[in-house]
Amino acid sequence: MQSPARLWSGVAATGSTFRAHIHAILRHSDNTPGGRRWRSLHLFILGAGLLAAALSSVDGLPTLVDRLLEAVIVLVAVVFLAEYALHLWAAPESPRYGGLSDANARLRWALSAPGLIGLLAVLPAFAITTTAVKADSDLAAVFCILWILKLSVHAPAMGTLARVISNERATLASVLIVFVIVLVAAATATHFFERGGQPQEFGSLPAALWWAVVTLTTTGYGDVVPHTVGGRMVGSVVMVSGILVLALMTGILATGFAEEERRREYLRVWDQVVKVPIFTELGTVTLSEIVSKLRVRHYPPRFVVVRRDEPGDSMFFISDGEVEVRLPREPVRLGQGGFFGEMALLDRLPRSATIVTTQPTTLLVLYASDFYEIASHIPSLVAAVEKEARRRRQENEAGAATAAGGAD
Amino acid sequence: MQSPARLWSGVAATGSTFRAHIHAILRHSDNTPGGRRWRSLHLFILGAGLLAAALSSVDGLPTLVDRLLEAVIVLVAVVFLAEYALHLWAAPESPRYGGLSDANARLRWALSAPGLIGLLAVLPAFAITTTAVKADSDLAAVFCILWILKLSVHAPAMGTLARVISNERATLASVLIVFVIVLVAAATATHFFERGGQPQEFGSLPAALWWAVVTLTTTGYGDVVPHTVGGRMVGSVVMVSGILVLALMTGILATGFAEEERRREYLRVWDQVVKVPIFTELGTVTLSEIVSKLRVRHYPPRFVVVRRDEPGDSMFFISDGEVEVRLPREPVRLGQGGFFGEMALLDRLPRSATIVTTQPTTLLVLYASDFYEIASHIPSLVAAVEKEARRRRQENEAGAATAAGGAD
Amino acid sequence: MQSPARLWSGVAATGSTFRAHIHAILRHSDNTPGGRRWRSLHLFILGAGLLAAALSSVDGLPTLVDRLLEAVIVLVAVVFLAEYALHLWAAPESPRYGGLSDANARLRWALSAPGLIGLLAVLPAFAITTTAVKADSDLAAVFCILWILKLSVHAPAMGTLARVISNERATLASVLIVFVIVLVAAATATHFFERGGQPQEFGSLPAALWWAVVTLTTTGYGDVVPHTVGGRMVGSVVMVSGILVLALMTGILATGFAEEERRREYLRVWDQVVKVPIFTELGTVTLSEIVSKLRVRHYPPRFVVVRRDEPGDSMFFISDGEVEVRLPREPVRLGQGGFFGEMALLDRLPRSATIVTTQPTTLLVLYASDFYEIASHIPSLVAAVEKEARRRRQENEAGAATAAGGAD
Amino acid sequence: MQSPARLWSGVAATGSTFRAHIHAILRHSDNTPGGRRWRSLHLFILGAGLLAAALSSVDGLPTLVDRLLEAVIVLVAVVFLAEYALHLWAAPESPRYGGLSDANARLRWALSAPGLIGLLAVLPAFAITTTAVKADSDLAAVFCILWILKLSVHAPAMGTLARVISNERATLASVLIVFVIVLVAAATATHFFERGGQPQEFGSLPAALWWAVVTLTTTGYGDVVPHTVGGRMVGSVVMVSGILVLALMTGILATGFAEEERRREYLRVWDQVVKVPIFTELGTVTLSEIVSKLRVRHYPPRFVVVRRDEPGDSMFFISDGEVEVRLPREPVRLGQGGFFGEMALLDRLPRSATIVTTQPTTLLVLYASDFYEIASHIPSLVAAVEKEARRRRQENEAGAATAAGGAD
Repeated sequence: MQSPARLWSGVAATGSTFRAHIHAILRHSDNTPGGRRWRSLHLFILGAGLLAAALSSVDGLPTLVDRLLEAVIVLVAVVFLAEYALHLWAAPESPRYGGLSDANARLRWALSAPGLIGLLAVLPAFAITTTAVKADSDLAAVFCILWILKLSVHAPAMGTLARVISNERATLASVLIVFVIVLVAAATATHFFERGGQPQEFGSLPAALWWAVVTLTTTGYGDVVPHTVGGRMVGSVVMVSGILVLALMTGILATGFAEEERRREYLRVWDQVVKVPIFTELGTVTLSEIVSKLRVRHYPPRFVVVRRDEPGDSMFFISDGEVEVRLPREPVRLGQGGFFGEMALLDRLPRSATIVTTQPTTLLVLYASDFYEIASHIPSLVAAVEKEARRRRQENEAGAATAAGGAD
Repeated sequence: MQSPARLWSGVAATGSTFRAHIHAILRHSDNTPGGRRWRSLHLFILGAGLLAAALSSVDGLPTLVDRLLEAVIVLVAVVFLAEYALHLWAAPESPRYGGLSDANARLRWALSAPGLIGLLAVLPAFAITTTAVKADSDLAAVFCILWILKLSVHAPAMGTLARVISNERATLASVLIVFVIVLVAAATATHFFERGGQPQEFGSLPAALWWAVVTLTTTGYGDVVPHTVGGRMVGSVVMVSGILVLALMTGILATGFAEEERRREYLRVWDQVVKVPIFTELGTVTLSEIVSKLRVRHYPPRFVVVRRDEPGDSMFFISDGEVEVRLPREPVRLGQGGFFGEMALLDRLPRSATIVTTQPTTLLVLYASDFYEIASHIPSLVAAVEKEARRRRQENEAGAATAAGGAD
Repeated sequence: MQSPARLWSGVAATGSTFRAHIHAILRHSDNTPGGRRWRSLHLFILGAGLLAAALSSVDGLPTLVDRLLEAVIVLVAVVFLAEYALHLWAAPESPRYGGLSDANARLRWALSAPGLIGLLAVLPAFAITTTAVKADSDLAAVFCILWILKLSVHAPAMGTLARVISNERATLASVLIVFVIVLVAAATATHFFERGGQPQEFGSLPAALWWAVVTLTTTGYGDVVPHTVGGRMVGSVVMVSGILVLALMTGILATGFAEEERRREYLRVWDQVVKVPIFTELGTVTLSEIVSKLRVRHYPPRFVVVRRDEPGDSMFFISDGEVEVRLPREPVRLGQGGFFGEMALLDRLPRSATIVTTQPTTLLVLYASDFYEIASHIPSLVAAVEKEARRRRQENEAGAATAAGGAD
Repeated sequence: MQSPARLWSGVAATGSTFRAHIHAILRHSDNTPGGRRWRSLHLFILGAGLLAAALSSVDGLPTLVDRLLEAVIVLVAVVFLAEYALHLWAAPESPRYGGLSDANARLRWALSAPGLIGLLAVLPAFAITTTAVKADSDLAAVFCILWILKLSVHAPAMGTLARVISNERATLASVLIVFVIVLVAAATATHFFERGGQPQEFGSLPAALWWAVVTLTTTGYGDVVPHTVGGRMVGSVVMVSGILVLALMTGILATGFAEEERRREYLRVWDQVVKVPIFTELGTVTLSEIVSKLRVRHYPPRFVVVRRDEPGDSMFFISDGEVEVRLPREPVRLGQGGFFGEMALLDRLPRSATIVTTQPTTLLVLYASDFYEIASHIPSLVAAVEKEARRRRQENEAGAATAAGGAD
């Protein structure tokens, strides 16, 4: 567990007001150490709360354990209450409510999706103290399950998923309609074949539909199974159809996902590329071509990005953070705008030094397969990279000559 | 439920004959409010009819409920009878039967797929009043299940799915043949291993085949399970093969789907692009390149397309409908042929205003990742967009200067 | 069932020797009516034989049915014996054994995969008459199951599947090794948790492995289920891993399949494109670009390729066969090298006539999305298409003027 | 089994020190015959050890079998001990520890992942002789299961898989969070519906969660099944969600895999292309374009690469090894840098000769679909290929004229 002092320490580094800090941290969009610590803590509290709620629904636990679980639930609810109050207070900082009065901005936030989820998460704190609810420990537990909705803020790519499903909704709906037609047809057919032998399981259409769903999704509980030859033939067709439906859905989502991911990555790269001088000197059209070839990678501190003597297939541009090049004599540090790993692409040599991040670092990766394609279109970029590479190699050689007899 | 008066209100807006209106609406291809209302109503009636039919097959319901369900079924059947009669009457309006006499066109429609499905859906209306059928409430229910076929008209992308499966039929057939070979081989092998211990379950090849189907599709009811070491080894191989078969089918359909979807989208965009003057001024070759980069999106009324201060990754061209730009002073409306959101691409700024549709609107979306690629090929388009953008910005600034002190 | 006279009628049409005909037909590569009839008949005989073999393994059938099934099996075996003998006799016609003596070619074929499968399929004919085998009707049935191998000749895309799996074998093997590691780890962990409570089901590692396979493939028979909390947690992880393994395999095969399919289609188009004069006039480099845009489609006789007044998204080139254009006055026939449907691409008009194949026809399809891309690179092709289109339109208009007052 | 003499024979062929040989072989990166033999032997020993360990956990085996299995386990453990010792001794040869003292390099290796896995695999050798462990044969068996980790060295594409999962981790995590939300919501809902009727199975949330996991992964053991209408409706939604989750995961991994595979193949080709003079004469930019079109294929000795008279769709460049062209008169051998199969691309002719590898051979394959694209960009390469082809054809014709009357 982090001490509160350390938890907020990252906040002071930025230069804006306290309320804006709190807002940025609570929106989970803050990338300072303080923001990251809050995210970890939030996830931990959420997990603890959910676990306690789930366990408290088990009957016959010792009273002590029951008391303990209840204490955890109340504690978590109090934290979420505090979070809700803080978020409500800081809501006017949101750019979405820019230009509105503070009260108006708060009301709007309270009625937005995150606001309502926050309110739902707070309710158990009050409900659990009510006698009527408390009597049925089960009900209390279920109440807390609303906390699961808070988990959604920890899924950064949820937007991509939602957009893919939204873009492909017409096709997905068609697959679902095929699914329903197969379902109803199969249930009716099996109902005919099996109702004589198994009136309990296949005697009515709703009962037969249950079997059809369980079979078409290839779940196959086995609680209801056809016994006649006709029923088994229908069943076989339904199972194979289930595989086809799954394949169709996968095909649709894979296609949509590939397109959406390409667009998202393009925007992510564009946000980073403007921090690297070697790119910003290029014109917009040239730049847009490079952007589609770069990939963004976020690394934690002390991460080994490249390792000495390993073969390399990419070069890196630093758009945020800092790395340490572990050269034989003394380490060199490269900051924002620097680049490294170019020798692997220019001369197909193994990495000449191990390179490690010193802080959370965002790198733009350019792979060998794209480097040469760019090389033929934008010779100026390659020239700049080559010039810097030549300078470094000379420096290395000069250093090696001086340090002759030292480490290899 | 809509009143009939409102239901048909959208029809009067178009300028052609009454029979043509009815035909367009019944074919579910009409995009006027009247057409959309009919589609929703049709889906609701269909759902009610199917539910009533399914429930009426449950034994031991109170007589009152049974009577009620029967009433719903008869009502739905009457609606479908009316729909069938109307469609038959309006059939000569179909361009497919252009040049034929009315009687001939109606006969042809009656024999086409939608005509036959319509007839099948009407039959229960008569059958259910027959004593022989009525005696067995089950049979009546099953009869109504034919209505499920009407659901297929609500699946707009059914054509895409059918074409993908048709294009890939040779490869899918090969996977199915592999499937059958594995099935028969596995059933035979397990039959050998298990027939001693489980003569009931594995004593004959057809019985063993049932186990093999249930296993190869990874459904796994568990009603028949191998007990010998040999049988379990065969079973393990069959399960892994099942995963491979599913993966192969998905691979085939995903590949085919990506290609077909690209073609469909191209045609959809082409149909819309001709309504936007900024595009129609371009030559066919240039236009065909842009068409492959645009995406069609349909939005309902009062849909927030872009939100103020959010980052943007796309610009929009209006090919149908109207949007309202919520500017600080007074909202501005943009109609067919207009475009918005270009500042996000030109200057990488967040959205400067919230934009909402005022009616069902079709937009052509151009994403940032494609904008710059087009920019380098077709400078004239970008110049036109930039000119309009400059005009708007000046207007905004002039307005902001006048309204200084007002809302931000 | 076809009469033998009709069955062979298509053979006489081609101009080579009788033995070569037989060989082409038996190899299932012959596309004449005779060849297609033989393929259908072969599939029917194969199906009948397999069905009879499977049913004869059921115990307690009436003697008459048993006799009948046996008769079918013997009959099918005799047909396969005749096929084997004919194939052996015609083997020297294979280009693969060109230059070898007849006897040598036959020996080589007998030792090749199709030869050995053919021999295996013939064996039951002799085995079934042996008393020892006959006593156990089961054994006889199983013997006939070897016929399933003959099914593989009916899977035209088997080669594509095999090549995809072969190309991706290193990656697939890695997924399988991950699969095995998860399997063994899960079995060991559950063995620890469950062996106390369920010594029968989880008491030894091999028994626990059976549970792990059934769970990791998400088959889930339910014959062995963990009851402890630890066992269920391991089980949950195994199920989710199963989904991941399936997703990985699908991803690998989808990627490989897309690449292989592109190559195969390229070769298929190339084989057809040389029959169309409008293409063969182009240089090799230009041609190779068009080839990658065309798609091959095979149609049976009397198939409606395009329907009057429907919107069109493609044009067609006839590389084999013939179509009938159903023009208002009199139908026109287009043979090899002809093309149609170009107006849909040039003027975005609906189809002006229904077009139906008169015999098995192979068409090259060019979709709208590719047409304009080609148009900008190869103006000569588009010019040729446009010239022909203009000629046709004039003809149509002239005809319409003459036939004024007739059918529209 | 190989004799030790043969096993090491391939080692002498390379020109470096003995310790370096041992190191290369133990790292499984050695492609000499010695290295390949060691890999096969290692896999065989590993399999034998795992099998013996698994079987020894079965109760009630005869004492003799138990003794035998124990002997195998000890033997395998001894081999792994020897491997560990050798690897520790040879560790300083690793380029990763270049510049460190021998002792330091060994320590580092011992603490690396392969070092620790090696140590874990050795431990059973000592543990099994301890009385405490030996008493519980089960425990001994489980101990040996650690050997499964050694299997990972046999999965060459493990790195690709790991990188795909790492690149897509944000999206995969979001899908997993959706998975957890659906899971908890479904468990809670079913808990409500079913706890009355099935207090044992659905009475607490953890119990309901077990059902939800089994259902959402479509495993469907059937040990816990909802009986109420509400529970079954929730169950149906969960099963369909399960299919969607699987489809989403597959879509994500398929997209990521396609991109990663393209990059890996590019590097693999680049490593081979430098060995073929016809390519190295080209400039870097031209070369980089060709590299993206070539594919690397490894073949074992005596593999038939192309077969006479079969249609061809590719040409081959030899980057390693040797092939034999089986010409009618006398076979010709082609070594590193040679190419063949070009006539299939230039003249669309069937293969003129069967070509077989004489040793493990690496070929670069250029498919027809890519050949013409390259042809239009790099005429010099095609000219070189055509010149050689013309030379060969003349030689063939001259030979055929001389050998007239011989084999065709």
